[in-house]
Amino acid sequence: MSSFAIGVDLGGTNLRISAVDADGNLLEKLETGAQVSRGRDFVIQEMTDAIKSVSIRLRGKGEMVGVGIGVPGIIDQDTGMVRKSPNLPDWRDYPVKEEIERRLNAPVILENDANAAALGEHWLGAGRNVNDMCILTLGTGVGGGLVMRGDVWEGMTGMAGELGHITVHPDGPKCPCGNNGCVEQYASATAILRMARETIAAGNAQELKDLSLGTGPFKNVEFTAKTIYNLALQGDKPAQEIFRKVGWALGIVLGDIVNAFNLQMYVLGGGVSNSWDAFAPAMFEQVRKRSMVYAATAPADVENAKGAAAGVSYQPSPKSKRTIITRALLGGDGGLFGAARLPFLRSRKTPATSPA
Amino acid sequence: MSSFAIGVDLGGTNLRISAVDADGNLLEKLETGAQVSRGRDFVIQEMTDAIKSVSIRLRGKGEMVGVGIGVPGIIDQDTGMVRKSPNLPDWRDYPVKEEIERRLNAPVILENDANAAALGEHWLGAGRNVNDMCILTLGTGVGGGLVMRGDVWEGMTGMAGELGHITVHPDGPKCPCGNNGCVEQYASATAILRMARETIAAGNAQELKDLSLGTGPFKNVEFTAKTIYNLALQGDKPAQEIFRKVGWALGIVLGDIVNAFNLQMYVLGGGVSNSWDAFAPAMFEQVRKRSMVYAATAPADVENAKGAAAGVSYQPSPKSKRTIITRALLGGDGGLFGAARLPFLRSRKTPATSPA
Repeated sequence: MSSFAIGVDLGGTNLRISAVDADGNLLEKLETGAQVSRGRDFVIQEMTDAIKSVSIRLRGKGEMVGVGIGVPGIIDQDTGMVRKSPNLPDWRDYPVKEEIERRLNAPVILENDANAAALGEHWLGAGRNVNDMCILTLGTGVGGGLVMRGDVWEGMTGMAGELGHITVHPDGPKCPCGNNGCVEQYASATAILRMARETIAAGNAQELKDLSLGTGPFKNVEFTAKTIYNLALQGDKPAQEIFRKVGWALGIVLGDIVNAFNLQMYVLGGGVSNSWDAFAPAMFEQVRKRSMVYAATAPADVENAKGAAAGVSYQPSPKSKRTIITRALLGGDGGLFGAARLPFLRSRKTPATSPA
Repeated sequence: MSSFAIGVDLGGTNLRISAVDADGNLLEKLETGAQVSRGRDFVIQEMTDAIKSVSIRLRGKGEMVGVGIGVPGIIDQDTGMVRKSPNLPDWRDYPVKEEIERRLNAPVILENDANAAALGEHWLGAGRNVNDMCILTLGTGVGGGLVMRGDVWEGMTGMAGELGHITVHPDGPKCPCGNNGCVEQYASATAILRMARETIAAGNAQELKDLSLGTGPFKNVEFTAKTIYNLALQGDKPAQEIFRKVGWALGIVLGDIVNAFNLQMYVLGGGVSNSWDAFAPAMFEQVRKRSMVYAATAPADVENAKGAAAGVSYQPSPKSKRTIITRALLGGDGGLFGAARLPFLRSRKTPATSPA
């Protein structure tokens, strides 16, 4: 009889739950209507109820080894608490892990959602043939996660991998984290909207302006990062310029990360990564110029770009020793699979944190 | 009978050799007059001759386990070659490791000099009580090295830890590495001289100008990063402003690194780190503002600063879970000890690179 784990993705809006076996087969996937905005106690109740019902249904399929939960925020692994989460303000200083363990009578592992996505892509996605990789998740914000030697690099307190808050420009736009000019201020969906508004305000961007107002050809079209991308695809210069800025910022931060870590693979996930065609050329130009480690180890950009553009991530041979920058393969499910991976990784050994 | 290893520090100017036992006791230290500028073949001859003579003298003291060599440049660990080294142009694409092993009939490990310094500080210096740390060596350039779980984090090809080339300002001064605005362009001795010249050219910096010309009270005083620091200590505002810029840049890059790695300790070494008093306040201000991981885990800045200013690095308890930013303890010998540590670490196991 095999075993399975529960993975939970506590997104900015919804709650998703999966049951996955040790080989990565999805046994069940469930999206609850539970809105995270309804608060901690409501969400925890919904979550534990759903997990219990999944466990009961799968009872014949094997032992449930544990529950992994991806949370959008900084997790303090020592206390099992959420330290900082813009979307989950009332989760702070509350013993989440302890409380859910008590209700389920099963081991629970909390993990930053981008760390979970990194683990999912490493297990079953773009990084399945490499040991060391990182992910940048380009969504409402920019998350980051590091997998080193097969497990999440947690750092001293579980807060490592906050790659979305690496500084791109020290005098750049203010970031809610307290810094100025974080990559999140250039490469998130939120940043794309802000840059579009700035472009409109500066004038000479009629199409963008019409899109933002839903006028002209854009009646009933929402003003989102995705529709701005569509405009760029159609050849609109101001929209293209915005995505060049996205690529510029990503190239700078990737240059920093490549110089620091010298990993084999850097994966871009999240909704904005679907605009790859529009930002990748500027990104590759910047990272090649700015990182001598990339320049010394990269395949031809075209090779990196081709694989990713085709939607089939470039798959290096483990011995290729080439720096790969590519797209996530699991879409929105990376975090869900990664969360389910956690109990398998951690149940038989100590976590990846240093034994300090 | 115990064993010993040979550590070599192939500096920008001189060649230094040490014999160190497994407990870190220095058995012998030797500085040859061999100028590195006299070229590869000359240096390799001097080095191997000196190592042989040390080994012969120590023959009664135990087995020589191997030779570690710290080299200022990017090392390709797969080929044992120096890939990029401004100070050692003719070492490129030459089988250094193989050639020295052949001459000595002993295992040789090449390592980037800052990685060696990180290992030395981790073994016997500021980081002796922590598992995970990094170093920034502020010298002619800015080097970087990472120790994770007790050994150098090499990355895919041995090029990890190039922290001196993390971007501080994307439009900053041109760096020889190809990038603009690397931290090396703000926090190296070379950068301090450049900034001083820029300040002089902008006018209103009479003391700095006199210092640069060796006129007035500065007859026979050299114009160096150290004498500019002395001027700052005496209250000269333009000189103080230069060191505030050094601290500003270090704070930005430390913020990036703390957000990415969440290590327990960040060590500043190299000659410029002796100007700690002049740059540390601006550095702590920036890193606290820019890194939410630092803000969540730092002790009071004053605690970090006090320990370092007193010359006795703040020594955390391994359980303290505080982010420490402090000064190197071994001065110029960190790299020499770290190089000697390599054969002990690697002789009985595979290197710290991933087994990809």
